[in-house]
Amino acid sequence: MILLLGGTGYVGQAFVSELRQRQWEFRALSRHELDYTRFDVLLPLLRSVMPQFVINAAGYTGKPNVDACEQDKGGTIAGNLLLPQTIAQACSVAGVPWGHVSSGCCYAGAKIPTAEGWQAVKDLMSPAGRAVLATAPENIQGYAETDLPNFCFQDPPCSFYSGTKALAEAAISGLGSSYIWRMRIPFDEVDSPRNYLSKIQNYPRVYENVNSISHRRDFVRACLDLWERRAPFGTYNVTNPGFVSTHQVADLIQARLKLTRPLEYWSSDEEFYRLAAKTPRSNCVLDVSKLLATGVKLRPVMEALEDSLQHWQPAQPWNLTEP
Amino acid sequence: MILLLGGTGYVGQAFVSELRQRQWEFRALSRHELDYTRFDVLLPLLRSVMPQFVINAAGYTGKPNVDACEQDKGGTIAGNLLLPQTIAQACSVAGVPWGHVSSGCCYAGAKIPTAEGWQAVKDLMSPAGRAVLATAPENIQGYAETDLPNFCFQDPPCSFYSGTKALAEAAISGLGSSYIWRMRIPFDEVDSPRNYLSKIQNYPRVYENVNSISHRRDFVRACLDLWERRAPFGTYNVTNPGFVSTHQVADLIQARLKLTRPLEYWSSDEEFYRLAAKTPRSNCVLDVSKLLATGVKLRPVMEALEDSLQHWQPAQPWNLTEP
Repeated sequence: MILLLGGTGYVGQAFVSELRQRQWEFRALSRHELDYTRFDVLLPLLRSVMPQFVINAAGYTGKPNVDACEQDKGGTIAGNLLLPQTIAQACSVAGVPWGHVSSGCCYAGAKIPTAEGWQAVKDLMSPAGRAVLATAPENIQGYAETDLPNFCFQDPPCSFYSGTKALAEAAISGLGSSYIWRMRIPFDEVDSPRNYLSKIQNYPRVYENVNSISHRRDFVRACLDLWERRAPFGTYNVTNPGFVSTHQVADLIQARLKLTRPLEYWSSDEEFYRLAAKTPRSNCVLDVSKLLATGVKLRPVMEALEDSLQHWQPAQPWNLTEP
Repeated sequence: MILLLGGTGYVGQAFVSELRQRQWEFRALSRHELDYTRFDVLLPLLRSVMPQFVINAAGYTGKPNVDACEQDKGGTIAGNLLLPQTIAQACSVAGVPWGHVSSGCCYAGAKIPTAEGWQAVKDLMSPAGRAVLATAPENIQGYAETDLPNFCFQDPPCSFYSGTKALAEAAISGLGSSYIWRMRIPFDEVDSPRNYLSKIQNYPRVYENVNSISHRRDFVRACLDLWERRAPFGTYNVTNPGFVSTHQVADLIQARLKLTRPLEYWSSDEEFYRLAAKTPRSNCVLDVSKLLATGVKLRPVMEALEDSLQHWQPAQPWNLTEP
């Protein structure tokens, strides 16, 4: 039996759907039912239920966006850091393997080729990054799991959200048997305030950058596949292979969904951070070679995007009342 | 046997002295010797050594002051929050009681009498606070352990340091058997960059406020006394009964140490925060009734101050080279 924590969230719901589809026996535990953030509640539960595997899909992402984490540091630390450490320590005592939904947002930029080899550029929209993007985007190299995070408290600036997610990875890794699954900017065909494709349509202005992104169902499938194949425990970047610019995605949305309204862009990073954002955003390219080497399959990012827009489900009226 | 973590720090050294004096069997563990911040190191150690009691005197206070914590959020979270949670969870699994050196800096101000009863004033230097201080200081009431912290992430503004210390208390309490010992602004007769009496002498200008403060040796004695008496586990304010203004302490230093240099003061809070401090400071009065009710003795604050200045030990030359 698989124990799922945080099954009601955006990523947790996708785990529920996929677990159902696979007909794997699971139990989705809500905090209302049992406060699994308490070590003295979680450990006895693990010892009595003895799940084969635990999934932590709970976390604090901030609503409507990551800026909210700056205003609720206590909640952000509790959800993204104290909880994963508690699960890691409880699972290690009970001898239960587990997987943690983490984030690739502990990186900024990508690696670009230079005469000497490779150089990390923290902002792909910088002149150096733009030059490579314009001439040979295939030469952009994503960060691998062996690259140290460079958008975190140890390597500032970073958002408070990213800082806590990166610290959690350090607190978890090496303790017991766990997967750290790094997601980035989820999207799929279901219109939602958390869906990247919905966000782009709803922003008053769009922020141009380059990112590796994760199709939500592809992500949870890859996570479960890693466990099913008994791939070695450890950290995995789980994004659809490749990367896209916001412009590319916006153009695709315009073309496929036939939007009547033209999408507008912030004229510069400076304008975006001055008027729209309170804390720095992580924009980065990730290397998924480690994941693919295990045999787990993941569609290229453009294929996943095309598929999502082809099956696009606009929000139902009851959804429109959401803030 | 007592296991002491963080025995090389300012508070830890005082525990070492007092444990030696009491001839209690103890082991002071340094991180260089064994990385006790790792759950998978600490838990096996506890299970093999099975100490009667664990003391956590480790923490991240920031050097030269709490402003440094704002610049190293990762280190502050790791030292003040992840470590105590790890110790709490390991001790609860091993069934070992323990004590944690916490801080009263999760409060601001004090409670003052009003027509309706008591009112918390977050800044005793405010007109309301000053009025009571000037007319009937004996009516100032300190925060008790049952009062919710009001200088923390849940009740901002606060320093990042205070935020993490308050979160740690929440993460520890209710799990296993532990004391949470709240210290405030340590002082004693030994000149040191951490000693309040040294700080006042060395500040270019002094910041006027009102505080409950802890004589370092009195503090560790009270902590050990609580355990020796098997007082109920839980949170205890451990400051010398009463409170003092910086002015009172500075005047006492001038009089007893016969300083030739007059001490200067910041003209206002505004000037202090604009020129000298980056993050808000906790200034507060604590109620120690709960501690005293257990039978543990603690000298009134003025007696402890007089005693420290009477036995004042100026820094040795080798100390002067410290930054």
